[in-house]
Amino acid sequence: MESLSLPIAAPDAAFHQRALARQMQLTKPPGSLGLLESLAVRLAAMQGRDDPQLDNIHISIFAADHGIAAEGVSAFPQAVTAEMVRNFAAGGAAVNVLARHAKAHFEVIDVGLVRGVDLPSVIDQRVGPGTENFKSKPAMTQQQLQAALTAGAAAVQRALANHADAFIGGEMGIANTTSASAIAAALLDEQVTAITGAGTGLSHDQISRKAEIIRQALQVHQSALTTPLEVLRHLGGFEIAALTGAYLHAARKRLPVLIDGFICSVAALAAVRINPDCRNWFFYAHRSDEKGHKIVLEALSAEPILDLRMRLGEASGAVLAVPIMQMACRLHNEMTTFTQANITTG
Amino acid sequence: MESLSLPIAAPDAAFHQRALARQMQLTKPPGSLGLLESLAVRLAAMQGRDDPQLDNIHISIFAADHGIAAEGVSAFPQAVTAEMVRNFAAGGAAVNVLARHAKAHFEVIDVGLVRGVDLPSVIDQRVGPGTENFKSKPAMTQQQLQAALTAGAAAVQRALANHADAFIGGEMGIANTTSASAIAAALLDEQVTAITGAGTGLSHDQISRKAEIIRQALQVHQSALTTPLEVLRHLGGFEIAALTGAYLHAARKRLPVLIDGFICSVAALAAVRINPDCRNWFFYAHRSDEKGHKIVLEALSAEPILDLRMRLGEASGAVLAVPIMQMACRLHNEMTTFTQANITTG
Repeated sequence: MESLSLPIAAPDAAFHQRALARQMQLTKPPGSLGLLESLAVRLAAMQGRDDPQLDNIHISIFAADHGIAAEGVSAFPQAVTAEMVRNFAAGGAAVNVLARHAKAHFEVIDVGLVRGVDLPSVIDQRVGPGTENFKSKPAMTQQQLQAALTAGAAAVQRALANHADAFIGGEMGIANTTSASAIAAALLDEQVTAITGAGTGLSHDQISRKAEIIRQALQVHQSALTTPLEVLRHLGGFEIAALTGAYLHAARKRLPVLIDGFICSVAALAAVRINPDCRNWFFYAHRSDEKGHKIVLEALSAEPILDLRMRLGEASGAVLAVPIMQMACRLHNEMTTFTQANITTG
Repeated sequence: MESLSLPIAAPDAAFHQRALARQMQLTKPPGSLGLLESLAVRLAAMQGRDDPQLDNIHISIFAADHGIAAEGVSAFPQAVTAEMVRNFAAGGAAVNVLARHAKAHFEVIDVGLVRGVDLPSVIDQRVGPGTENFKSKPAMTQQQLQAALTAGAAAVQRALANHADAFIGGEMGIANTTSASAIAAALLDEQVTAITGAGTGLSHDQISRKAEIIRQALQVHQSALTTPLEVLRHLGGFEIAALTGAYLHAARKRLPVLIDGFICSVAALAAVRINPDCRNWFFYAHRSDEKGHKIVLEALSAEPILDLRMRLGEASGAVLAVPIMQMACRLHNEMTTFTQANITTG
């Protein structure tokens, strides 16, 4: 895994400067487009072009099951992971609707359902039949962690082959907010109760129980949680590790990334802890309603684009931010300048 | 003006209920699409259809000059109002770029520049050569107020003739945050300094001076500010009054409205004070960075869709919210249900 920590290049400083200068010349009070200005400027620097664009989006949804689901930490039974994978394949889920209207390339990868779904449109990169229950055992082996990280990088390779302008990762896995909350608590050395939330819709008492299970698991694994990779391996989630692998590889390949909600942000946090250079390549699409997201976003110094009280996952928040980023690009590329429009600047 | 206060019908309660029920059946945890759910449900009730849609948007930009500009309350000279109208006509401004990509119908109405621009694409509904300087005089006459309100209603009539799914109003007028801040302070009986902000980019000292000018003007007109219409007339802005007239007429005609930033929200506040029934027909597109917007939004119990630190006006924030609302509609209309997808619900 040594290669994960090799230096990653920064976006292009010359294009960054030119894009900043252009924003000052467009027919609007300087700064009045707010976050849209920095989105366009950052994208220009990442893409190394004066006219940033976001027309060709690649969406990879990683699905996997979680041993910790046996503890009753989700409002939905484990069978729903595979059922939702079938729903993705049939085109009926939220992310399908959003992906169609964003004209994005969409794919689903099974990185470890309990049982495979045998559908031609689902990419089979199964790492195992779900993770172990991390209440008492490490969620995965070294080999499984490596395979999950590699599955993520492979998705980015497909995005690059399709000449994508940006990469979006998403996740599906019943009980994966439990895994993500445990990882976040371990990486941030934060109180479990401050991070653990309702997931798909737990009651107050159920959330307390979920937090207590995570607290106990962190005690069990405490001495082993010595590196971000060991945190991922013990508290796991094949799909979370795949996202971390994808984000690291995208940054290395200069492919801009839109990070979705809580679980994806935890995967991004793991990526940043593995290699801080990767953070320059990330956009944070939205602030989720899941309790721990705020803390994770703050740890990442992230300024999310949207805040719509969503808590769905499956990349839905990231795809919703696409039209906002597209508009930021078009404003940057198509607005006239003060000089062209003969406007008095004071 | 008596007709402005006649009762306005509410959106359709039966369609509202049906849309709520459908949201509970879609393949996602209930409530997990957050604000998108209520956007779709409200729009279904307004449009009286099970499949709400927002494909056909009508954008009207009202432009006018302000006598108060003589007090040096803007970072830009008054000539910029007309120069920006020419920029709108030439297609180079931010709202042009956004309108093109939203495939919206776009029009500009001169409701009172100092001098008309004589461009065929600019609708001439001039109420006067700019308002009077409200530091000492009422901004407009009764006849001018009526003409401005009527110009707004006429824009909504054009939107209805084009079978628009929603109406967006925008504004251009150097010094119009001064007018809007004065109106907001008067309607909300709020401290001027709590509302007055940087507009197009004033320094701290310039903002203090602007607030002092507004405070003095409110003292001059105090005894005359007895109704929302008299507030509009004295503290003016032909374009602000036109927006108020448009919003009231749209609500009466059951046409959903997307409210832009600070100035449009002040026009909406005036509309709600004139006739509280109209509020059911409004969506608030974004929270602007202009200081007073937060207070005005709170007074309207508004939950804005976007918060991007924008402060441009010209309807730009409202048009940016269109793709989010379109996605909300498509999710509502196109997602599959739990039953259709055979998904276990617990």
